Amino acid sequence: MVTMRDVAERANVSIATVSFVINGSKRVAPETRARIEAAIQELNYRRNVVARALASSRTRILALLHPDLESRPNATVIQFVMGAAHGARERGYDLVLWPVNDDEQMSHLLAGGLVDGVLLMEVRISDPRVERLLASGVPFALIGRTEKDDLPYVDIDFAATIELAVAHLRSFGHERIALVTQRTKAQAGHEPGRIMRVESAYLDAIAPLGAPPAIVAVEGTSAGGREAASVLGADFPGSTAVILVNEGASAGLVKGSRALGRRVPEDLSIISAATTRELGEMIEPALTVMAAPAPQLGRLAADALIDQLEGVQDAPPHVLIPCALEPGQSVGPAPVD
Amino acid sequence: MVTMRDVAERANVSIATVSFVINGSKRVAPETRARIEAAIQELNYRRNVVARALASSRTRILALLHPDLESRPNATVIQFVMGAAHGARERGYDLVLWPVNDDEQMSHLLAGGLVDGVLLMEVRISDPRVERLLASGVPFALIGRTEKDDLPYVDIDFAATIELAVAHLRSFGHERIALVTQRTKAQAGHEPGRIMRVESAYLDAIAPLGAPPAIVAVEGTSAGGREAASVLGADFPGSTAVILVNEGASAGLVKGSRALGRRVPEDLSIISAATTRELGEMIEPALTVMAAPAPQLGRLAADALIDQLEGVQDAPPHVLIPCALEPGQSVGPAPVD
Repeated sequence: MVTMRDVAERANVSIATVSFVINGSKRVAPETRARIEAAIQELNYRRNVVARALASSRTRILALLHPDLESRPNATVIQFVMGAAHGARERGYDLVLWPVNDDEQMSHLLAGGLVDGVLLMEVRISDPRVERLLASGVPFALIGRTEKDDLPYVDIDFAATIELAVAHLRSFGHERIALVTQRTKAQAGHEPGRIMRVESAYLDAIAPLGAPPAIVAVEGTSAGGREAASVLGADFPGSTAVILVNEGASAGLVKGSRALGRRVPEDLSIISAATTRELGEMIEPALTVMAAPAPQLGRLAADALIDQLEGVQDAPPHVLIPCALEPGQSVGPAPVD
Repeated sequence: MVTMRDVAERANVSIATVSFVINGSKRVAPETRARIEAAIQELNYRRNVVARALASSRTRILALLHPDLESRPNATVIQFVMGAAHGARERGYDLVLWPVNDDEQMSHLLAGGLVDGVLLMEVRISDPRVERLLASGVPFALIGRTEKDDLPYVDIDFAATIELAVAHLRSFGHERIALVTQRTKAQAGHEPGRIMRVESAYLDAIAPLGAPPAIVAVEGTSAGGREAASVLGADFPGSTAVILVNEGASAGLVKGSRALGRRVPEDLSIISAATTRELGEMIEPALTVMAAPAPQLGRLAADALIDQLEGVQDAPPHVLIPCALEPGQSVGPAPVD
């Protein structure tokens, strides 16, 4: 067994100096530090994380289970991921990315003892992964919500977000407001929870207007956006404004509307919600967006999980933050008939 | 010390069944698996990863050191990250995200013994992090290259990419081709290696045309893209085509050019290189892109590192893959004077 003394001797420094480097507790001159690190590697001295894990049954590693982001990375999702990684790091934890949704793999990973806790993204209304986590006893926190409201979660406050979007559009005279959301391949009851919540918030928010609801769900792609434009034109020609909660379809919606002779914002106003300002600015005209508080929510999710692990919370945290309105050039006065 | 037998007894199954679940070596009925996982948690049985790490001095964890992606996520960078996470997982390793560039923090992490190896992104021509890794003895692989060509790396083949872009533009009659690249805050010699390589490839590729080079470096933002449009108009009015290697500036370049009365592609053709097709499609007109092989390179970087760890490589791997041309609507015939 290699000891800290062996490392100190090899690097020709005191044991205290080795400890400063290992624990990050005090500044050590770069050359000295490099010498100590080299000695640690040469002697294969693995004290810190691994030994501490065995001593305390804690690894200080958190796993983020995420959907497949490789094929279709999404500006907002990645802000959640990075926010969580930063938040974990600041509290002395490491975040592992697990591109795992398959049940068998999840089982293997949970049984491995690698992680102290799990963050779950793209949470569905009824989510088998949540059942698995509950059964396994591994602490977790959700980015999103299931139908059960008693689990620890952080999420976008969709009710407040949609209410604000409708109020903004009404202030420009719009009374026929459509909703464009995302179609998924999930079976009924297994959609991401956000879709159900957005639709329900929309129905509440437009109820005072007395107009019938106009909801279109399309894929989160340029093609999906074009499809939305043509469905809106065919089925809901009276709508003068759209709330879009599907950032991948935003460019297609604008291009598709223009191709059908509906200019943005002269004929059709658009608010893109739960997205980033940068993405809105890429489009012509620059979109009025409601920016998702994704970096903050990612951090708060890590905090919620770590609070659980460290036993410093009374009740499961429930954090909801609305998106922030950032006006662009895609909202204008409602056209007069 | 809790043993596997304790877990088996608590879950009321055989030791073999516990082992199947822990090692993922055989299918086990979901209810049984859940019972075993619950027993593992209740008894705080941490065998697999932690014990194996202590026994073998290996943790099977890789760290990805990345720049701060939270504030400005970039479609292509994230494909690298996810590609690496998938690649690691397929070979039985976990990828930890380390949002760390600070020297002090890096030292702490390397000394902690958590990781078997490191992947480095956004590699600079002269990169102090590489020196640190070399000094520490921790195995690593680069996504990108320093000026030294003897380290293990995977990278975009910028020379072949730019050559192909120039050939494509020449086939449309363009002879005055400008380059728009990215300005960074890094001091000279510490820029990302890709910028130097792109400029050098551009100079080689346009040399046969005999026209003077036209290089503009701007920030990777919409404002940067607009700045590029106005600098091109003022300093290089004869250029009829642009190769853009700065995806964050792509929308701004198109909007800025249009605002100055230069239509795309009638007056100015644009190829956006080292980006994604999806990003190009968001813009009006849809950009001709050269798609970065980011998911593949991410995987190959993980492979290069794991091959090192497992001693199955003869020489440091050097992998270069060019971007793939995907025609859009932003390249047209060179305007006739």
